[in-house]
Amino acid sequence: MIAGIEFGGTKTVAAMGHRNGGLIEEFRYPTTHPQGTLAVAIEWIRQRGIPEALGVAAFGPIILADHGDDYGGMLATPKPGWEGFSLSASLRAAFPGSRLVIETDVNAAALAESHSGAARGLADVAYITIGTGIGAGILSGGRLVHGALHPEVGHFKVPVFPGDDFAGVCSFHGNCLEGLASGPAIAARWGVEASALPPGHKAWEVQAWYLAHGVLALAAIVAPSRVVIGGGVSQADGLHQRVETIFRKLSGGYFPHAEGTDYIMPPALGQQAGICGALLVVAAN
Amino acid sequence: MIAGIEFGGTKTVAAMGHRNGGLIEEFRYPTTHPQGTLAVAIEWIRQRGIPEALGVAAFGPIILADHGDDYGGMLATPKPGWEGFSLSASLRAAFPGSRLVIETDVNAAALAESHSGAARGLADVAYITIGTGIGAGILSGGRLVHGALHPEVGHFKVPVFPGDDFAGVCSFHGNCLEGLASGPAIAARWGVEASALPPGHKAWEVQAWYLAHGVLALAAIVAPSRVVIGGGVSQADGLHQRVETIFRKLSGGYFPHAEGTDYIMPPALGQQAGICGALLVVAAN
Repeated sequence: MIAGIEFGGTKTVAAMGHRNGGLIEEFRYPTTHPQGTLAVAIEWIRQRGIPEALGVAAFGPIILADHGDDYGGMLATPKPGWEGFSLSASLRAAFPGSRLVIETDVNAAALAESHSGAARGLADVAYITIGTGIGAGILSGGRLVHGALHPEVGHFKVPVFPGDDFAGVCSFHGNCLEGLASGPAIAARWGVEASALPPGHKAWEVQAWYLAHGVLALAAIVAPSRVVIGGGVSQADGLHQRVETIFRKLSGGYFPHAEGTDYIMPPALGQQAGICGALLVVAAN
Repeated sequence: MIAGIEFGGTKTVAAMGHRNGGLIEEFRYPTTHPQGTLAVAIEWIRQRGIPEALGVAAFGPIILADHGDDYGGMLATPKPGWEGFSLSASLRAAFPGSRLVIETDVNAAALAESHSGAARGLADVAYITIGTGIGAGILSGGRLVHGALHPEVGHFKVPVFPGDDFAGVCSFHGNCLEGLASGPAIAARWGVEASALPPGHKAWEVQAWYLAHGVLALAAIVAPSRVVIGGGVSQADGLHQRVETIFRKLSGGYFPHAEGTDYIMPPALGQQAGICGALLVVAAN
């Protein structure tokens, strides 16, 4: 039996379960300051026994490059109190005999969707989430991509939609993909939240253009067999189909691995993806 | 003792050597039609004994996703006679007891540069080559990225240089990165070969812009610790420095793994990279 913890922007989930992602019991509560949020999860797990291993899926950016002292260290984040906080320090102190594996929330979601969701059984999967930012997790040949620092993915530049002069909202890059197509970008560009824009609004044509260019870069660089697009903004009616249509034009039939009409899909696991992924990262790392 | 074969666009190299990339003896000859080119390498190796394993680094695109019958199959390529040719069929028939590992030339070069070249000791490396096309090999966490099909990397879109109305030369995508910045793109745009353009020519400002956007996408998606840029076009005086300067502006200090002034480097191994890489792919796969 192992334990898992999902740290999300608004909620945290602690669970007992199996290495195959199977849940035995879970507990959901609001994410607050880091010490308090961790203490609740640690206490809940301890009451259920000492797990052999502990898998963590966390928002970031987070240091994962080695398993040293800075493993699980939070980098610059707008969430109050979390910047500089070390997930590994508290968890190693609480469970000194348990193997600790920390992953990004997007990598955990990519793993979960590959295990039993929209990319079931596939070894090469990209999971993109579009919400307050744009991030992606990448499974390549059955292994999660970390890179020197977990790549945030959203911060590269794509061609602007013809005639678009929106400067973008990214404080580092202005009009990078995240700066042009995240939830806050949509709200700043159109003056209303994405959820308030009707399906026929031009916003969705622009949004699909940017996401299709992002998918194209993923297809060219890491060649996933399937791209799962999730996150709040992705729930707009017909968005996946729109992205696929533009992607199909852009790709020009060049990528044999991306020709299927099921290349770009919504996630299948819903709110269980994060905590299932947290359990699955133990066996995957 | 193992054997290696590098299939290049103009030359082929057969070698005997070690799993650590060390060369014992090598033989270089022109690449012609596939059967003849393979026959020479097979005969040369056979005269030296049956190798335990055979590592191959080949131009592509090439099928590497599994080790089945289509392993090492050549996809659409302009090289006469090579499209549809199977590297694995002839090599398995010639050396039935030897383990066969086939890799792309760019992945082999990334591995070689990581082993003993410009990215020595690094586990996260991108190797970009700019010649008749733009391709890249990616080492991620010490493993070579294959994806569903080896990603060609050059075929995604980046923002055009301000005022640039060149349509690009890619027959699939027009102005994808390869269509805008490969050797043929430079020749078509400026009317002379890249090698004939002096260092102060505006062509290099444009070229550096496109390459910097390509590096930015790699930094965001796979987060290499170092990006090695090789290939004929990369040999222009000062090009790496120009790319780094623009990349630095684009990245805005966002990528901690890419802040060093040695982030973008020329290759260090020269013409030995390919055949050393061919030997190294055996242990890496």
